[in-house]
Amino acid sequence: MKHRQYHVAIVGATGAVGIEMIATLEKRRFPVGKLTLLASARSAGKALKFRGRPVVVRELTKDAFIGVDIALFSAGGSISKEYAPAAVDAGAVVVDNSSAFRMDPSVPLVVPEINAADVRHHGGIIANPNCTTAITLMALHPLHRAFGVTRIFASSYQAVSGTGAKAIEELERQVSQTVRGKPITKEVYPHQIAFNVLPHVDSFLPDGYTNEEMKMQNEGRKIMGLPAFRASVTCVRVPVFRAHSIAVSAEFKKPVSVSAALKVLKRAPGLDVVDAPSSARYPMPLNVAGKYNCEVGRLRMDCAMKNGLCFWVAGDQLLKGAALNAVQIAEVLAGRWKNRT
Amino acid sequence: MKHRQYHVAIVGATGAVGIEMIATLEKRRFPVGKLTLLASARSAGKALKFRGRPVVVRELTKDAFIGVDIALFSAGGSISKEYAPAAVDAGAVVVDNSSAFRMDPSVPLVVPEINAADVRHHGGIIANPNCTTAITLMALHPLHRAFGVTRIFASSYQAVSGTGAKAIEELERQVSQTVRGKPITKEVYPHQIAFNVLPHVDSFLPDGYTNEEMKMQNEGRKIMGLPAFRASVTCVRVPVFRAHSIAVSAEFKKPVSVSAALKVLKRAPGLDVVDAPSSARYPMPLNVAGKYNCEVGRLRMDCAMKNGLCFWVAGDQLLKGAALNAVQIAEVLAGRWKNRT
Repeated sequence: MKHRQYHVAIVGATGAVGIEMIATLEKRRFPVGKLTLLASARSAGKALKFRGRPVVVRELTKDAFIGVDIALFSAGGSISKEYAPAAVDAGAVVVDNSSAFRMDPSVPLVVPEINAADVRHHGGIIANPNCTTAITLMALHPLHRAFGVTRIFASSYQAVSGTGAKAIEELERQVSQTVRGKPITKEVYPHQIAFNVLPHVDSFLPDGYTNEEMKMQNEGRKIMGLPAFRASVTCVRVPVFRAHSIAVSAEFKKPVSVSAALKVLKRAPGLDVVDAPSSARYPMPLNVAGKYNCEVGRLRMDCAMKNGLCFWVAGDQLLKGAALNAVQIAEVLAGRWKNRT
Repeated sequence: MKHRQYHVAIVGATGAVGIEMIATLEKRRFPVGKLTLLASARSAGKALKFRGRPVVVRELTKDAFIGVDIALFSAGGSISKEYAPAAVDAGAVVVDNSSAFRMDPSVPLVVPEINAADVRHHGGIIANPNCTTAITLMALHPLHRAFGVTRIFASSYQAVSGTGAKAIEELERQVSQTVRGKPITKEVYPHQIAFNVLPHVDSFLPDGYTNEEMKMQNEGRKIMGLPAFRASVTCVRVPVFRAHSIAVSAEFKKPVSVSAALKVLKRAPGLDVVDAPSSARYPMPLNVAGKYNCEVGRLRMDCAMKNGLCFWVAGDQLLKGAALNAVQIAEVLAGRWKNRT
């Protein structure tokens, strides 16, 4: 598929991730010959800009994929399940941002910096991982390659934009209601999110974990090719607009040190080390919002386990956690991928 | 000291914790015969209400403790170091909310629900623990008694009121500046706290942990009488006004189950179990703000260790993390303490 122009379709083009996909294709100069924007009937007719020119959004139908080379899906699992097969039948390769196909053994689950080679095994669909998992692995996987990870204990600090555009509006509205002394109204989350934290992201499983929490272990095993990897995670929504942060305690097989870990992380692609705590420099959601690279810092030896290391990683979940990673997978498909540090 | 009235002094009476101390003494009907409110020269002359009547705040001096039986200190470590000995010399028992004396082997460090008996070994000063530690131990210690804790991995979600009244104003001001589209100003924290999270509470140690993070292990060992206890903690400030939350993965010596843990926690004093995730019921800072009891929920078997349990605990750090615990220690001194479930 090298040295050519691609007909790219975006499904869910008007959503928080879809808009970032359009911008990322443009910014990374992906060779888009034609761009088809698809969304629900409600959004059809709207125009979104690409390379300075308006592209009219069309209604998503099963015959919308004729001639499409690469279809980036980000409209939820049920839309993916219904329409991705039609796109594949039409000859497109689907990069799906939903959780619908991630654990399907025939579908590669890819973070290009980690397992770009898995793309070649695709049968029409390639899955984009969960945002919190992708951001955590950007720091964890280089450490794994050097020291061999066995398990992690992690807690997340997840922004409302991970839920979508309506959740951004909800936080804005509740903050405004608080400032004006008006009653708080709720539409998206079961509880007030402004000035609160909710230990509740995605739905609950019978064992008490949420789906989101178990994605770290399940998707982490598949992406790193490490079936024995264990991850005990608590996922928490915080009143931040954009970018997720994760506090991680990781156990390794081999002895690890802060200096050896720093050396590894400084060489890792897609990752910036921000670790000068004495001058109050560490990753924060405000600093990574809108940024392609993730940031890692607060490195220290874990005081509760042997060969353990603590770190704090932050990343823009609409970019590395969604749109950027999807476009990077398209770059792998187009033979344009380079693992840049 | 039973069946009598006490002359109680509060040092730092006009601070966020001091104000809660006054309210807590009143609400819990502590037998206050006389109340002396002490603060810096700047606050002297202000009047604060106690039992409906104004009490004028006096300037803190070394001879302000004549006749005082119990002095509750909450004005920072340097004030405690300078004035607590004078209070003891004047015959008062000091309950100190700062970190100044906590790790002094001659000073009991007390959470009454856990180690009320340690109060009797005091030599004039009794220390009140770190807020995040106290709230975590309210759930961890009952589990330890039943199953024998060895170590924990924990991450905190700490409210700005833990920093004091000026930090509450800072979050309010930054939110208002954001809503009004004005530039954000900073006075208390090194970075914007509104719509952000800071992996930075208290000062950094050479090993990369913060002082706050190591308090969990150091103070936890002393309070639980468990010198081998290990705690790997990441402390994070979040844009919440009041009440701290902590995500905990705990490892035990004995086999543990969710049902056995629930049974233990439901009997634990000062703690409410809020654990019905399928109906979106779990502890949240908004629900525990202003509440004496801490809340625990999100119980589940830890999927990354043997005999491991995950839980989520929240508590009002101005109350159980500070003022309430101090008044409860005074209740122990006065022979009024009952371990109520």
